[in-house]
Amino acid sequence: MNETEQAVLDWWQTDIIEMRPGEIRYRGYPVEELIGNVSFAQMIWLMLRGELPGEGQARLLDIALMSAVDHGPQAPSIAVARMAATCGVGLNNALASAVNVLGDVHGGAGEQAMAFYLSIQQRQQQGIPLDQATKESLDSYFAEQGKFVPGFGHRFHPIDPRAPRLLAMVDEAAQSGVVSGEFAAIARQVEREIAHRKGKTIPMNIDGATAVIYAELGFPAPLARGLFCLSRSVGILAHAWEQTEQGGRNKGPVPRQYTWSYSGEAPRKVPGAE
Amino acid sequence: MNETEQAVLDWWQTDIIEMRPGEIRYRGYPVEELIGNVSFAQMIWLMLRGELPGEGQARLLDIALMSAVDHGPQAPSIAVARMAATCGVGLNNALASAVNVLGDVHGGAGEQAMAFYLSIQQRQQQGIPLDQATKESLDSYFAEQGKFVPGFGHRFHPIDPRAPRLLAMVDEAAQSGVVSGEFAAIARQVEREIAHRKGKTIPMNIDGATAVIYAELGFPAPLARGLFCLSRSVGILAHAWEQTEQGGRNKGPVPRQYTWSYSGEAPRKVPGAE
Amino acid sequence: MNETEQAVLDWWQTDIIEMRPGEIRYRGYPVEELIGNVSFAQMIWLMLRGELPGEGQARLLDIALMSAVDHGPQAPSIAVARMAATCGVGLNNALASAVNVLGDVHGGAGEQAMAFYLSIQQRQQQGIPLDQATKESLDSYFAEQGKFVPGFGHRFHPIDPRAPRLLAMVDEAAQSGVVSGEFAAIARQVEREIAHRKGKTIPMNIDGATAVIYAELGFPAPLARGLFCLSRSVGILAHAWEQTEQGGRNKGPVPRQYTWSYSGEAPRKVPGAE
Amino acid sequence: MNETEQAVLDWWQTDIIEMRPGEIRYRGYPVEELIGNVSFAQMIWLMLRGELPGEGQARLLDIALMSAVDHGPQAPSIAVARMAATCGVGLNNALASAVNVLGDVHGGAGEQAMAFYLSIQQRQQQGIPLDQATKESLDSYFAEQGKFVPGFGHRFHPIDPRAPRLLAMVDEAAQSGVVSGEFAAIARQVEREIAHRKGKTIPMNIDGATAVIYAELGFPAPLARGLFCLSRSVGILAHAWEQTEQGGRNKGPVPRQYTWSYSGEAPRKVPGAE
Repeated sequence: MNETEQAVLDWWQTDIIEMRPGEIRYRGYPVEELIGNVSFAQMIWLMLRGELPGEGQARLLDIALMSAVDHGPQAPSIAVARMAATCGVGLNNALASAVNVLGDVHGGAGEQAMAFYLSIQQRQQQGIPLDQATKESLDSYFAEQGKFVPGFGHRFHPIDPRAPRLLAMVDEAAQSGVVSGEFAAIARQVEREIAHRKGKTIPMNIDGATAVIYAELGFPAPLARGLFCLSRSVGILAHAWEQTEQGGRNKGPVPRQYTWSYSGEAPRKVPGAE
Repeated sequence: MNETEQAVLDWWQTDIIEMRPGEIRYRGYPVEELIGNVSFAQMIWLMLRGELPGEGQARLLDIALMSAVDHGPQAPSIAVARMAATCGVGLNNALASAVNVLGDVHGGAGEQAMAFYLSIQQRQQQGIPLDQATKESLDSYFAEQGKFVPGFGHRFHPIDPRAPRLLAMVDEAAQSGVVSGEFAAIARQVEREIAHRKGKTIPMNIDGATAVIYAELGFPAPLARGLFCLSRSVGILAHAWEQTEQGGRNKGPVPRQYTWSYSGEAPRKVPGAE
Repeated sequence: MNETEQAVLDWWQTDIIEMRPGEIRYRGYPVEELIGNVSFAQMIWLMLRGELPGEGQARLLDIALMSAVDHGPQAPSIAVARMAATCGVGLNNALASAVNVLGDVHGGAGEQAMAFYLSIQQRQQQGIPLDQATKESLDSYFAEQGKFVPGFGHRFHPIDPRAPRLLAMVDEAAQSGVVSGEFAAIARQVEREIAHRKGKTIPMNIDGATAVIYAELGFPAPLARGLFCLSRSVGILAHAWEQTEQGGRNKGPVPRQYTWSYSGEAPRKVPGAE
Repeated sequence: MNETEQAVLDWWQTDIIEMRPGEIRYRGYPVEELIGNVSFAQMIWLMLRGELPGEGQARLLDIALMSAVDHGPQAPSIAVARMAATCGVGLNNALASAVNVLGDVHGGAGEQAMAFYLSIQQRQQQGIPLDQATKESLDSYFAEQGKFVPGFGHRFHPIDPRAPRLLAMVDEAAQSGVVSGEFAAIARQVEREIAHRKGKTIPMNIDGATAVIYAELGFPAPLARGLFCLSRSVGILAHAWEQTEQGGRNKGPVPRQYTWSYSGEAPRKVPGAE
């Protein structure tokens, strides 16, 4: 192999997949052995983490993924998908436009909640007890970042029905030794401490709960967003497809008889126009 | 509710999700019951089809999804994801740019293979036997659409190691009555008939094999592409994440010492420039 | 240069840009000479066509580009841009999600209108007079493709105020010999013939009029869509930016007190759930 | 108008465009008067700023836009566009995937350079002389943000041929009173101060130079990125189109005989597989 060839091969260096004619291995495992022996959730774990998960770990990942697929057309991602589906583009394009908007605000709460939990864990690892560590992390958060703790409170649901159920799943997994349960404890302490400060409970939401799961499973925080994107892609696809079947062309955000309120300059002439 | 309100609500009409404060139902099922009782693959089915799948159906869908996650950085989708990850955008954006390119050529073979199988099935339903129906569909395909039958042959693998294994999974499911096996039979007949015409076997590839699964499970053809997008999103995410960890800024397609070959106009002056 | 190196360079072969350290040439012209001597519209032409346009050609291209920048938030592209801007993504991402939906239905009318004009021109070039050629093309269009001729009629404007003004610009350019005016004649004949068949005028819209300009200027039909994307990107950017300044988080399609109408399954239990 | 109707209209409130059947106004100006009297660059200004620019201002904006259209296929945006064009998606989709990657690293240098200039201007406005203000802003930048000042230095060009030419255009505009020239002075002082500290000149690049123009013209910093996206869209479109005409299917980053270097796990068996 000459130097150029090596430089080109090295430019696209990866640990994930190895390929030769007739042969495909992911993380060392031949694809034909993975098929039928490893579930979609296990495969997702293998691709992202490099090793196969235990059964309990895979189950918990599967649960987090299936729980966040959709929150209806009020979510910009879902509305974008449905609108795109009426514009004459492919399902892949509708997916892309929609997943694209899962940014810091619409898709980042899980990642942010997880980063927040990890800051508490770090304090604990320095010997600070949970309640004190939580106080310090909250103090620091409120001082520097904002007034809403990511993963807690919901603008629509007084109690997000997904969160307590997901926490129960984590407890179950902790009891059987699949995970330690430390992040469930951290999250609950955060909820308690916020309630103490605000004088009312701001209950954990789906992002706060899936962040517990991803943290318990040892994913790095940015993948909380990545995994949420995989999950929400399901709802995006379902809505794009339903809209395709409903038909419609150039679906705007509101029925056609309504436009928008205009608040700009009164009518005026272009200087120089006749 | 006034007329405007009704018009607005109706504009975003859906069968998929129902929501009230504190309550989320998908296709009628409350989310807190789905969590822990229904797998990610089952949830994908429920969202797209409206009903929960049987266990065997869910297993087969899961297998199709896990089998197509990645084909390495030579695939434009994967290369795009890795390049995007070095440009200062989020993982959601890297996913979007990459999923976006799963168009007719890069992501459409499954959908096209399935449409082709369905054309054979339609002929069978009119009483034409399988071998004759296959001949007719191939004749019509070669006359109108192209010389490569979608789902057969691979530019890299002499035999795609995923295809025979996936077919074996379909056979297993057919033996236990989960699916009929008719599309496996159709696909094998297509392979035989192509071999007969070309004088050599052009073996089924991953797209031809997953199309068999999606057809056996009763998905409409366009969802073969939609489901492939969900599947490939896993590899896209894994590569975007690996690239993020490797670092790099503005990763071009080849190492920086190489540019491109220029074949245009020789150097010339702009008319009017000094 | 070794063989690998050559293969790599050739893989990215282009006529558009030549580069050496300290030197950039587009289509042969050095960038430092282009700057200050060539307008944005001329540069767009040079990049797409390979040669610099005449002044009158550049002016007409400039007019087509400036005329289609925006049609308000009822257009899916504009609504998507504004929603994206509230999701925590960059302006580049908001642009991408929005430009992405300029598909066959939302962004393809100009390309389709131009293809239709070209079909009439082809008939003329075979010696068929304009009125007869128009009839034949319309017959063939109605038989094969649809009932609405692309580029004519508007769901909101009884008369699209942009179209007659753009046609006047083409006439002016034709009078001064910049263009031939043949596509303006074709488009007007199409309008007349449709009016004759339907018993009422279906007036030319912006897409029909810009298609005339792009055809007069000799662009291939697919670039009518490409150029529309450049044009509409301006409105998309302006709306994304205005929304950014207005603020808002996760802007859905309608105010938060409204959701959507649900038409699916009545509430039901998950089989097997407690 | 009932309350719901008002709420819906207000949800999409804008100063940019007003529309009634047969009537379109941008910022108060009727579209039919704008067409033919206002150039594409003037229209871009009007859409983003709310008022029409003077002739000299429009010329400078036009220059900045035309100068940054393309930097060849080594730029991820251009490579992505060309790859996308071979995947069976529309030109709008190729544009979207490519513009999408103009993130903080690939498309943000102009915005960052402008923010840096503005920090110096702010110090000047507090009475600190230019050389001292520049020193303080550089000190603060090196302490907090990084070692490379955005807008200076280029990994490929020893001297970016676009930058001095663009600065000359600003000087010309300053001499005729179109702009003040203060940001040209700031940028030159930054270049001098960096040279003084590093012992060698790190010359201004295209991003540093267009940031001068956008700052002189009074655009807010985030629009430096927005305008760059409009500009680069031209090159993206040209390359996507050239690739379309060249043909190719599923163009990967390197010729097909090369794959990538694999650095992961050695071949291994899936536990539980036969």
